[in-house]
Amino acid sequence: MRPLIVFNHITLDGYFVDAQGAMSWAQPGNDDPEYAAFVAENSSGGGTLLFGRVTYAMMASYWPTPIADQHMPVVAKSMNAAPKVVFSHTLNEATWNNTRLLKGDLLDEVRKLKAESGPGMCILGSGSIVAQLAAHNLIDEYQMVIDPIALGSGRSMFHCIPAPLRLKLSKSRTFKNGKVFLSYLPT
Amino acid sequence: MRPLIVFNHITLDGYFVDAQGAMSWAQPGNDDPEYAAFVAENSSGGGTLLFGRVTYAMMASYWPTPIADQHMPVVAKSMNAAPKVVFSHTLNEATWNNTRLLKGDLLDEVRKLKAESGPGMCILGSGSIVAQLAAHNLIDEYQMVIDPIALGSGRSMFHCIPAPLRLKLSKSRTFKNGKVFLSYLPT
Repeated sequence: MRPLIVFNHITLDGYFVDAQGAMSWAQPGNDDPEYAAFVAENSSGGGTLLFGRVTYAMMASYWPTPIADQHMPVVAKSMNAAPKVVFSHTLNEATWNNTRLLKGDLLDEVRKLKAESGPGMCILGSGSIVAQLAAHNLIDEYQMVIDPIALGSGRSMFHCIPAPLRLKLSKSRTFKNGKVFLSYLPT
Repeated sequence: MRPLIVFNHITLDGYFVDAQGAMSWAQPGNDDPEYAAFVAENSSGGGTLLFGRVTYAMMASYWPTPIADQHMPVVAKSMNAAPKVVFSHTLNEATWNNTRLLKGDLLDEVRKLKAESGPGMCILGSGSIVAQLAAHNLIDEYQMVIDPIALGSGRSMFHCIPAPLRLKLSKSRTFKNGKVFLSYLPT
């Protein structure tokens, strides 16, 4: 079984995107050398990236651009090269390099992906997908970077999970830019 | 000026209370000896505790009881002895030991309290009060214990702040029970 990890930036009020669906509030501090090295290392595993339609569209419009290459060259190269999956019932094609479009039932598709051989898989953003998979115990690790900001409104990746989800803290690391990396496992 | 601290347990989805207003999800792990010692030490400063009406009612119905004395004797003794303030336009009296009822404008009352001499002040719970005071830069430190649980619904203490609040990480400490203490200062 391939493990499935979630990696998201989270505000102090628990949001992975703001009320407009943006993640730009997470950018300050990304130029901290120690933090940048951590992100580059953490995203270099060679695994498959999984997205919902909304996060896919946002990522596909950013990472292949010269701006991304200028600001975060190591991450951009890794993101563009990585094998990617987007789950959508409405998209007709997925043109970002190395992307598979899966249109079937989310839980079935993820169970099939997990049964394949190869390195692990990682969900970025994609709150509605995280909430559905979390509720069915299909996520093997929750990685969060707690950013030192409160927004007042936004979306949680655990929005409306049907029951409280108790996790086990597995790793933690604090950075000089004020970001705190926390990793949790299912109990 | 007396400093004003906020101390709250926060879920991984950013809530300080669940959808029913309860904080019982934060109890697992409180019997961890290292964590219990931290909480007892952290609550022993002798400062004034500040509450909104809802949190006051919940605390006043718990801490003076034999159950509280049995489960967390050091904290219960400290909570009952501490000088307390409740802000409310509707309460007519506050009968929990050593409590002052303040019925005036919240910002005015807090500015007057901060100008008094004495040890610091601490807000527990009281989300609507935190959001109002945060928006007016009247909070000097935000202490949060991140509990290893997601609820799916609840209330954030930063709900509807009028602008994003960027903070500076000041302290962090991880406990074996999976709770993570984070302290932030205004920027």
